[in-house]
Amino acid sequence: MKKYTEMSREELLAEQSAVKAQYDAYKAEGLSLNMARGKPSKEQEKVSLPVLDVLNSKSDFSNDENVDVLNYGNLEGLKECRMFYSDLLGADPDKIIIGGNSSLSLMFDYIMQCYAKGASEETEPWILQGDVKFLCPVPGYDRHFGILEYMGIDMINVPMTDEGPDMDVVEELVKDPMVKGMFCVPKYSNPTGCTYSDDVVRRIAAMDTAAPDFRVIWDNAYCIHDFDEHGDTLLDIINETVKAGHPERAVEFASTSKVTFSGSGISVIAANEPNYSWIKKRLVKQTIGSDKINQLRHSRYFQNFKGVHRHMMALAAIIKPHFDVVLTKFDEELDGLGIARWTKPNGGYFISLDVMEGCAQRTWDLCKEAGVTLTNCGATFPYGKDPKDENIRIAPTYPSLEELAKATDVLMTSIKLACLEKLLAA
Amino acid sequence: MKKYTEMSREELLAEQSAVKAQYDAYKAEGLSLNMARGKPSKEQEKVSLPVLDVLNSKSDFSNDENVDVLNYGNLEGLKECRMFYSDLLGADPDKIIIGGNSSLSLMFDYIMQCYAKGASEETEPWILQGDVKFLCPVPGYDRHFGILEYMGIDMINVPMTDEGPDMDVVEELVKDPMVKGMFCVPKYSNPTGCTYSDDVVRRIAAMDTAAPDFRVIWDNAYCIHDFDEHGDTLLDIINETVKAGHPERAVEFASTSKVTFSGSGISVIAANEPNYSWIKKRLVKQTIGSDKINQLRHSRYFQNFKGVHRHMMALAAIIKPHFDVVLTKFDEELDGLGIARWTKPNGGYFISLDVMEGCAQRTWDLCKEAGVTLTNCGATFPYGKDPKDENIRIAPTYPSLEELAKATDVLMTSIKLACLEKLLAA
Repeated sequence: MKKYTEMSREELLAEQSAVKAQYDAYKAEGLSLNMARGKPSKEQEKVSLPVLDVLNSKSDFSNDENVDVLNYGNLEGLKECRMFYSDLLGADPDKIIIGGNSSLSLMFDYIMQCYAKGASEETEPWILQGDVKFLCPVPGYDRHFGILEYMGIDMINVPMTDEGPDMDVVEELVKDPMVKGMFCVPKYSNPTGCTYSDDVVRRIAAMDTAAPDFRVIWDNAYCIHDFDEHGDTLLDIINETVKAGHPERAVEFASTSKVTFSGSGISVIAANEPNYSWIKKRLVKQTIGSDKINQLRHSRYFQNFKGVHRHMMALAAIIKPHFDVVLTKFDEELDGLGIARWTKPNGGYFISLDVMEGCAQRTWDLCKEAGVTLTNCGATFPYGKDPKDENIRIAPTYPSLEELAKATDVLMTSIKLACLEKLLAA
Repeated sequence: MKKYTEMSREELLAEQSAVKAQYDAYKAEGLSLNMARGKPSKEQEKVSLPVLDVLNSKSDFSNDENVDVLNYGNLEGLKECRMFYSDLLGADPDKIIIGGNSSLSLMFDYIMQCYAKGASEETEPWILQGDVKFLCPVPGYDRHFGILEYMGIDMINVPMTDEGPDMDVVEELVKDPMVKGMFCVPKYSNPTGCTYSDDVVRRIAAMDTAAPDFRVIWDNAYCIHDFDEHGDTLLDIINETVKAGHPERAVEFASTSKVTFSGSGISVIAANEPNYSWIKKRLVKQTIGSDKINQLRHSRYFQNFKGVHRHMMALAAIIKPHFDVVLTKFDEELDGLGIARWTKPNGGYFISLDVMEGCAQRTWDLCKEAGVTLTNCGATFPYGKDPKDENIRIAPTYPSLEELAKATDVLMTSIKLACLEKLLAA
């Protein structure tokens, strides 16, 4: 088909009438579909159920360091759990602390510590330094922005490229001493699905920042969430920052939320000195330690990297077809129209879709009217404001393949309609 | 036996020589005993093991509100869990939020919120208000003091009576607008074991505080930890503060740490408006929700108040004999000597022992020398400083009955020796 942008007014009107008929037909179906939720499907949950069989009242609870897992103690987490995460992230097990069910909490608490107590022994709490700022690669993850907004930290948009944040922009912005950090989802980024290139990781590790208390929040949420054996590879930020002479630069976070159970997994922090000790200085006041029974349950279930890889491939076999449904349809029906572009990730949970400028919210509204819920427009930007009104985050994992196919059809029709309206109004 | 304080110098010297011989004999045994740890024994752990059999991969995970417990969501916690805690605490289930494995974390995070974001929409963060202060009934719990010390909040000692904190002192101190709160362990207080009287609870709820952002941290850690059917009763602070016209006065915390597994239980916050919404405003940024599988595991296991009561009575049957060993020995050997007084709680985890002024640290040292570890002197006071050097916290649950008997013998001998030294030096 011809590009919409190259159509004559008559062609556009003819197309609009055809698309509108299609849209009305969908609307008449009385659909109720949802592509907004970045959460595992029921089918994925089933893959993890055997985790719950690992421990029962008859179990032997012995472990590497002979910790009483049924009692208090062990702030850093069980050794086998730290070893397990060391395999996954590449960081030294002695730089790792195991947390509770939520890496979001670990990030919130870490940023709160920087905010209220400072990022190090030597630096002032951010709250006492005036209007501090954070760099936010966009599109990005709304819950990251939510943490910063809660603390009143100013957010600065940084454009994402296919290789990660635009480092020319980042390197310029960090010359401002009030810029205190940056949020990164370095592998299968939420929502673009891109993985930071080695060059980008090295530039993040090596760049000069005016603020001595600048910290990168390295949310490695999708570190092992490949769609097949040929997943993207990512440099280990913890080691790279040491090599670059900035060991304090980054704090890494991950969890099993999208590995086992989204609300009942284990999470992790990895950090070099001085961050590791600084974080522990808080943690020792905040908790006696995380849930060791759940830690043992997880490490016994996975045993080693091979075990977790096998598990992730079982999940990938479920997840990838969901992505394929959306991407195949996009390729068949949207490609070449000149009204949308989208990412084709090798893992993770999202597809990032950019429609013609100014058409995202209208697309969202049309979908809603036809019974398809999308992630709120603007959610992928600080303060909920997409400056070009073009980005839509698609979460394909949760709906069934059938629902997903239908929802994608409605979405594509809505995009076309929104863009046709815009072109005709021009 | 005659009171030490009424003995002549000759009598004291004779007694010292006899006690010293006994002490040396204990020392020669090469003991290694520990009365410092306020944690459940192996025997107690066994009582809770069946909790781990409640859920497995074949389980039906349905629940009162039909929440998908294997997935994200549900910030407040499962309804059955909130109902369960509502039974325990007396608070409305809609005023309850279920947390992770640690009520300490809930308290830390709440105080951090007040510190960095304020105690309410209308009031300034404590960090921006200058040198804010907190009232600490003493002796008290070192981890409470640790939170305040971490945040640099000044701690003011308030003496404990048999009915709770000395309210005349409290009512006077809260006239200072920089006094922003008070820590309370209202039932089987750590370490005195006393339960706040109705009058004390009502005075806490009703008193006028100069600070509008004054908050009571009501750590109801031992709310159901009675030694028998005739446990102490405690007024419900959440309702009392409403009655008194100060609904914002208190935030209540509890957990199953000493009910099921110390590191793998569930915790809870209960609060009236406006605190409830203010806390949720933070929580919604900090987490997607606590571990619902563990919540379901706990609520299925207990079913109802009767279930938890049965469980607690099974634990009490193990715990009470531990307290009896210590208290019987104290009664037999220390009573009437005029050198020590101690509490006789009806529940909880601790006995508070006050020895002759200036003799606690010397007693501790003598115990250590003879192979018996006690809770560090001063741990029951802010900044680790017991102004009278008289308080020792005894934690009888963890050692075996045999170890406990021996440790108590060593302790009593050490107390006698320390006090005799002091009397002879006078």
